[in-house]
Amino acid sequence: MTVNNDLHFRKVAIIGVGLIGGSLALAMREQGLVTEVVGVGRGVENLEKAIELGIIDSYSTDVCEGVKDADLVFLAVPVLSIASVIKTAAGSLKQGAIVTDGGSVKETVLRDAKKVLPGGVHFIAGHPIAGTEFSGAAAAFATLYQGKKCILTPDSDTDAEALSAVRGIWESVGSIVTEMAPKTHDAILGAVSHLPHVIAYALVNTVDGTDAGDRTAIDYSGGGFKDFTRIASSSPDMWKDICLMNKTAIVDVIEGFQRELETLKDHIKEGNAEGLIKDFGRAKKVRDTIKN
Amino acid sequence: MTVNNDLHFRKVAIIGVGLIGGSLALAMREQGLVTEVVGVGRGVENLEKAIELGIIDSYSTDVCEGVKDADLVFLAVPVLSIASVIKTAAGSLKQGAIVTDGGSVKETVLRDAKKVLPGGVHFIAGHPIAGTEFSGAAAAFATLYQGKKCILTPDSDTDAEALSAVRGIWESVGSIVTEMAPKTHDAILGAVSHLPHVIAYALVNTVDGTDAGDRTAIDYSGGGFKDFTRIASSSPDMWKDICLMNKTAIVDVIEGFQRELETLKDHIKEGNAEGLIKDFGRAKKVRDTIKN
Repeated sequence: MTVNNDLHFRKVAIIGVGLIGGSLALAMREQGLVTEVVGVGRGVENLEKAIELGIIDSYSTDVCEGVKDADLVFLAVPVLSIASVIKTAAGSLKQGAIVTDGGSVKETVLRDAKKVLPGGVHFIAGHPIAGTEFSGAAAAFATLYQGKKCILTPDSDTDAEALSAVRGIWESVGSIVTEMAPKTHDAILGAVSHLPHVIAYALVNTVDGTDAGDRTAIDYSGGGFKDFTRIASSSPDMWKDICLMNKTAIVDVIEGFQRELETLKDHIKEGNAEGLIKDFGRAKKVRDTIKN
Repeated sequence: MTVNNDLHFRKVAIIGVGLIGGSLALAMREQGLVTEVVGVGRGVENLEKAIELGIIDSYSTDVCEGVKDADLVFLAVPVLSIASVIKTAAGSLKQGAIVTDGGSVKETVLRDAKKVLPGGVHFIAGHPIAGTEFSGAAAAFATLYQGKKCILTPDSDTDAEALSAVRGIWESVGSIVTEMAPKTHDAILGAVSHLPHVIAYALVNTVDGTDAGDRTAIDYSGGGFKDFTRIASSSPDMWKDICLMNKTAIVDVIEGFQRELETLKDHIKEGNAEGLIKDFGRAKKVRDTIKN
């Protein structure tokens, strides 16, 4: 293990220096957890900006060069790329290094990562539940993870010491860390994050297809619709990846949702006022447990 | 007609002195459109507050007493109550008075209102598309309607002069007024407002029913879910009324949405990356036309 007791990394490589990766770098620096941060990415302009903002000390556009000698590698790349980046970097990863990620899907990511991970290198699958609507190094800030949940999904092969080190990092930057099985993570995130995105895309397409005579329905949307559909402005490419990587859980939860919606539609068709009040009321009660 | 050329009402009755009714009263006062405002409601505490805030000059808990001698009556009550309030008030409405409403459903409201409207009284069906998450007289403010759309839905029986007066009020308080058929209004609002509410309720119930082992899925929701489901905290009773009053349009648009969602589910099941990018991309393009 390269991690000493007071949790300090000599060199950290951040692959993908955007909101997620950049904010972790800033927070680790602020907590004195790291001596040197190397950024890896494809956009030189973004990487230059990251140096200017004090997020990283240097950068490389080459993964193998970037991860060389790194004690910790944080992968803030699209879920579909996590395993392929590890595969590319495999020959350059130092023995005892810890590789961890921030992807929104865990079971398939962990499965694929383990296939390409070189011996003597530890992979800890993780997912900080934090973000803003902005992206790129310029959007990063040190307090992004404060008070936010972070899920780690170890399995029976996971190295306990490496897991404890990654837990330590997230706790040091202010996160509330939970460990759970990858499958549980994917069912939960499928419900609270992936399903809402799929629904938001389907809703906007429905409104777009609404026959409103010579009017355009979306022109009459108010603040509620704006809030409700903000996530439909998310990257189609990123969400395509997440949907395909978390296929089983997402299809399951879509089908659960289809049943709930069908029930409400039946109530409306049948003029079932009591059924509507009961089912709307149940949802309101649950939603009211979230602040604002 | 009691409306003179420079659009001034001697006495206006606001039935339901909350965010919608109270804000119209404040805005009409600010624009010098009214001499005296009477509030009508059931909650005396709210009506006392409305006097204290300068929204109304006096109040009554009796509809008949409140509308007496009013040149304009604004109904800011639940959609299911609009016609019944008119029926109750019928004998007390002054000849030539204009009655107008702010309900989210127009075809059934207009149909029911016409059945109970006394001769010589004009009903103009309207819907200001504005609101906040707050309610009650204390939430009212004079600028609520500035820059917001307001839809009026006249039919072949509508009095042109009364319509023009109501249009004049909304324009005076800063709204962008559009006229359209009640059916068109209901199809549009069914899509951009009623459907999202039904979906939000169904989504929260789905998350509530998600099997997450010994965890509770909703505990892991982030900011996106919060924004996406805020409308599931809306009043079940009010939304039950809206769903039942706009049954045909809502069932239609739910079915349109079910088809869009089924398509996305099929893409995910089949691993159809191109289909997902195309359909997510179409939604993103439409959503991006709304500012933030």
